[in-house]
Amino acid sequence: MSERTCLSVILAAGEGTRMKSATPKVLHRLAGLEMLGHVTRALDGAGAGNKALVVGHGAEAVSKAAEGFAPGAETFVQSKRLGTGHAVLAARAAIARGYDDVLVTFGDTPLISLEALQTLRSGLARGADIVVMGFRTDRPTGYGRLIENGDALIAIREEKDCSDEERRITFCNGGAMGIAGNRALELLEAIGNDNAKGEYYLTDIVEIATSRGLTVRAIEADYESALGINNRAELAAAEAIWQQRRREAMMLDGVTLIAPETVYFAHDTVVGRDTVIEPNVFFGPGVTIGENVTLKANSHLEEARVDAGASVGPFARLRLGAEIMDGAKVGNFVEIKKTRVEPGAKIPHLSYVGDARVGAKANLGAGTITCNYDGFSKHFTDIEPGAFVGTNSSLVAPVTIGAGAYVASGSVITESVPADALAFGRARQSNREGLGKRLRDRLAALKAKRSKT
Amino acid sequence: MSERTCLSVILAAGEGTRMKSATPKVLHRLAGLEMLGHVTRALDGAGAGNKALVVGHGAEAVSKAAEGFAPGAETFVQSKRLGTGHAVLAARAAIARGYDDVLVTFGDTPLISLEALQTLRSGLARGADIVVMGFRTDRPTGYGRLIENGDALIAIREEKDCSDEERRITFCNGGAMGIAGNRALELLEAIGNDNAKGEYYLTDIVEIATSRGLTVRAIEADYESALGINNRAELAAAEAIWQQRRREAMMLDGVTLIAPETVYFAHDTVVGRDTVIEPNVFFGPGVTIGENVTLKANSHLEEARVDAGASVGPFARLRLGAEIMDGAKVGNFVEIKKTRVEPGAKIPHLSYVGDARVGAKANLGAGTITCNYDGFSKHFTDIEPGAFVGTNSSLVAPVTIGAGAYVASGSVITESVPADALAFGRARQSNREGLGKRLRDRLAALKAKRSKT
Amino acid sequence: MSERTCLSVILAAGEGTRMKSATPKVLHRLAGLEMLGHVTRALDGAGAGNKALVVGHGAEAVSKAAEGFAPGAETFVQSKRLGTGHAVLAARAAIARGYDDVLVTFGDTPLISLEALQTLRSGLARGADIVVMGFRTDRPTGYGRLIENGDALIAIREEKDCSDEERRITFCNGGAMGIAGNRALELLEAIGNDNAKGEYYLTDIVEIATSRGLTVRAIEADYESALGINNRAELAAAEAIWQQRRREAMMLDGVTLIAPETVYFAHDTVVGRDTVIEPNVFFGPGVTIGENVTLKANSHLEEARVDAGASVGPFARLRLGAEIMDGAKVGNFVEIKKTRVEPGAKIPHLSYVGDARVGAKANLGAGTITCNYDGFSKHFTDIEPGAFVGTNSSLVAPVTIGAGAYVASGSVITESVPADALAFGRARQSNREGLGKRLRDRLAALKAKRSKT
Repeated sequence: MSERTCLSVILAAGEGTRMKSATPKVLHRLAGLEMLGHVTRALDGAGAGNKALVVGHGAEAVSKAAEGFAPGAETFVQSKRLGTGHAVLAARAAIARGYDDVLVTFGDTPLISLEALQTLRSGLARGADIVVMGFRTDRPTGYGRLIENGDALIAIREEKDCSDEERRITFCNGGAMGIAGNRALELLEAIGNDNAKGEYYLTDIVEIATSRGLTVRAIEADYESALGINNRAELAAAEAIWQQRRREAMMLDGVTLIAPETVYFAHDTVVGRDTVIEPNVFFGPGVTIGENVTLKANSHLEEARVDAGASVGPFARLRLGAEIMDGAKVGNFVEIKKTRVEPGAKIPHLSYVGDARVGAKANLGAGTITCNYDGFSKHFTDIEPGAFVGTNSSLVAPVTIGAGAYVASGSVITESVPADALAFGRARQSNREGLGKRLRDRLAALKAKRSKT
Repeated sequence: MSERTCLSVILAAGEGTRMKSATPKVLHRLAGLEMLGHVTRALDGAGAGNKALVVGHGAEAVSKAAEGFAPGAETFVQSKRLGTGHAVLAARAAIARGYDDVLVTFGDTPLISLEALQTLRSGLARGADIVVMGFRTDRPTGYGRLIENGDALIAIREEKDCSDEERRITFCNGGAMGIAGNRALELLEAIGNDNAKGEYYLTDIVEIATSRGLTVRAIEADYESALGINNRAELAAAEAIWQQRRREAMMLDGVTLIAPETVYFAHDTVVGRDTVIEPNVFFGPGVTIGENVTLKANSHLEEARVDAGASVGPFARLRLGAEIMDGAKVGNFVEIKKTRVEPGAKIPHLSYVGDARVGAKANLGAGTITCNYDGFSKHFTDIEPGAFVGTNSSLVAPVTIGAGAYVASGSVITESVPADALAFGRARQSNREGLGKRLRDRLAALKAKRSKT
Repeated sequence: MSERTCLSVILAAGEGTRMKSATPKVLHRLAGLEMLGHVTRALDGAGAGNKALVVGHGAEAVSKAAEGFAPGAETFVQSKRLGTGHAVLAARAAIARGYDDVLVTFGDTPLISLEALQTLRSGLARGADIVVMGFRTDRPTGYGRLIENGDALIAIREEKDCSDEERRITFCNGGAMGIAGNRALELLEAIGNDNAKGEYYLTDIVEIATSRGLTVRAIEADYESALGINNRAELAAAEAIWQQRRREAMMLDGVTLIAPETVYFAHDTVVGRDTVIEPNVFFGPGVTIGENVTLKANSHLEEARVDAGASVGPFARLRLGAEIMDGAKVGNFVEIKKTRVEPGAKIPHLSYVGDARVGAKANLGAGTITCNYDGFSKHFTDIEPGAFVGTNSSLVAPVTIGAGAYVASGSVITESVPADALAFGRARQSNREGLGKRLRDRLAALKAKRSKT
């Protein structure tokens, strides 16, 4: 197929009023990626990467977001919403450029599969002028039916226009379509709007092509490929399907999920073999996990990397730029941001480490905090290999804790500590005999007095 | 309907032995509200708010709890447990007062719907003397069957007393019932106890009324309205139904739930449009969330308010009296109690802030803690707008951090800080060259020695 | 049955390539216990505790792990993998010792029930020479069918060898088998390898015994008893079944699970009546919870004990050796390890307490941390009854906080505090008027300068 040129027209102009949202429908996310991004990725995978994006509602936001997941896409604004046939023609200039294949897809079908798109293209490659993606269902009510005559698709019939016999057909219109590039404009322009709503329906193209003696075929895709999202409950249902597939694939590939139904992956999560993921772990985008890692329950990871044999959680949060290297340990109630935690280093409890390096085999006591922000700028903390930072210490950046240095518990470190030095930044303790009891008695008396008045 | 007077008799005397609990059955909670409270709310919604509560087992606890969710209810103690007919008559004094409608409901049916109750009342309003709530099921085994003759309900037959034909009936007794007020006492008192157990069965009222030529009707309610809870597994199943309905309603109303199956709402949770809720967020009672809020994964909220555009979590805990205002941010491992966090303020990491005000655009460093409790009383911390509190600081209440003031990292603040001042409350750092290495060597030697002995 | 001697041969030699794991298949865990451990526990429960473990792939790891959950088991190495019949004979020496019953089970069937094993033994006790465990299923495809003639089982037929009629049989081979000890060796040795793969199939034993006029029977077990695990998705499915059963049993026994589907128990978790468990609580092995405990959402417990009336979480982590006694409270973002928290003591927020005792009614302020580790050894912190530790304090072990003593907020405590004393270990505060503003202006200027360059 690769020698055939292809233009993908993606319809993304709808408002999606049932989403009840200020965000355009196709920008709602599934597995951390916009729905539209899922569609463009499937197209990329099917080698159909020249994209004409038809935008309308929230055009600016959609175009801008598309720069992220579909960098080279051209955008075309459909200023009036006059039906799907009209929408495709918004990209007339691109279609007119002349491609072998023109694919039409919908930005709100995030589960459309690579395979379905490839099958559409194969149909065109084998000589069809139009190929329509269909799906089979036991409950066809509400869908347009695919009316076939032998191999030929002769019409897409809306349910209200179906005969009783046609209504029993369970092969339904899945939306996406391939059109031979050399016929595309003439066929699209032949679509009329002589109907109740005065709209141009893309589905009419089938009967037009048939009447001209052209070859029209339907291919069968999975139900999910055709799943259009119209409200947030449907979005959540699609997310559930996506997650279930990804979890299954992960497990079959050698990842242990104790409670797969509680683990949420992002579209680009990578996890290595023999890694164990406890319940309630959440992956935002950009996470790569190596082999033999333990991710304990209730951890939250985004834009982070965890290398082989490391241990993370429970209750850990890895944010942008966290790199947990081989055998390192990040424990509970610990947040890591823009920090490389080198092999064998440990941050076991109650710490915030941001904009830092934690050298190999360094150990940060419970409550260690990097003071990386002064209210205006962020600064770097360099903890060199083998350093030992006592509990409840504050490391005021920019600062370096030298290799093998000790920081006493409860210290505030504002100047760099030389290698192998011992740093104190705390007051001496003094005990005042009997004063605890006196304080307690006084507080109790005060409380009693207050409760009387 | 509103012009008709109504008394609701709620049967809540049962022990619920299968709950295996020291807490009376009807006080077990669903979505954070006692089962009995769900019933009284549905009654309130149906305009049937004069309540006669029949209590028995744990009478005192039930009566006391009812003051919370059903303030005006009269309580009647059923001292002996002699059947449902006997139970209703415990409220004889109230019934005798004379109402147009008498509704009989059960305190262990927390999913009874407003609509079902309204339909019972409509039946009475249209002239029926008795209206029985039924439901249809494919698996009627175990339920009493509703025996009809045309429009008329002529009996409620227990399964063991059914003929083969009657056993095939799938319209079953759902428990709740409406009785015309002017007939109620005479009919209830006509119920006898000539049966194996010697109990008075409310269901006998149907045949009694029929034999007197009165009008008896059955109405059809949803299955859930009739769902009586007898053990904690059934309670959890009812909770699951309730949660699923609420999640669906939230999503259709414009709230994004990435993983709806992991989010637990309370009975009174309010969430605004375009708010995104990540997985594993738990709402206790009393929470109101504005529009466009982000609630990140694994957050826990009770008796709290979050305004538009704020961001909370992951791993945040908002407790009683937390108010997070527009655009404020509460981050990970942060607990907020009785504190107003004003617009744009930030508490990003590892903090406990209680009995405080955090002024607009103030910034609390990681590890900031308000010392609000002296062992006897709670005191207030006032952090004025634009203040910047360095990491790991302790603010010993009562204390004020003035507007625009800086608190150095690791400080213990025991006296108020004037506006725009810089406060230190920490020791100077000193580095001792080579001492870190000596300490390490000594500790290693000690350990080696101990492991030998 | 107890007077009959029994040997259990457990086949655990397979590699389980579809697990895609460096860990031998039977050592993958379900509810925190190795699959093989589930099988040996069921055998112990059925009084079939003399175990001959046939190992092969990862023999050393499997044998070592078995010391934990099946201490007295003999291990036999099957050096070549020549089929199940061959595998059983690896334990020839044990079988030859002469037992009344020989049970053959599989190490990858973690849900095999005590009852199924007992029924196998009963069959032998009643005189059968061979008893095969079967199960019924509507979808027998892929399973070997049990071919019966009246009461007699005459063959276990692989699907590919079945006639059309046999293929319709829904009674299938569940794997486990009982063999009369006095026949076992002769029958096992009669199994040949005259088949396509040249392997010795244990299932052939049925036809051999039948041909010799011996008595062969099939018993019916539940489907789950026969569930063999071949990949991690199947393991997760078995875990889900196990968890669902345990949750149901817990609820029926008087434990409230608000969202049972989010709570994960270990194989040995014990929970008392009227305890309430909020969503997303995870139990590792070794946890015992008393009555009337509240376990709030998102808590993580391993090797810990919580006594009656205590409150834990949300976001609490109890680790090895945490003992939370009557009425004590462990709050959010708190980690407890090897520590006894005595009755009524409170550790409400953001603390790490390890290797310690927290005396009755002691109160640890938010951010209190025990500095139990010096980089080499762990030391003990003794907080005596009624002590009050101010927020953000570091207790550097070994150290004692005397009964009724006060520790001022933000203190670093390196020496023991006498009873009723007041201890300070912090610097005095100083405010520098206007310096906060000057600092802010300077930082803003610096930032502006940097962003220009």
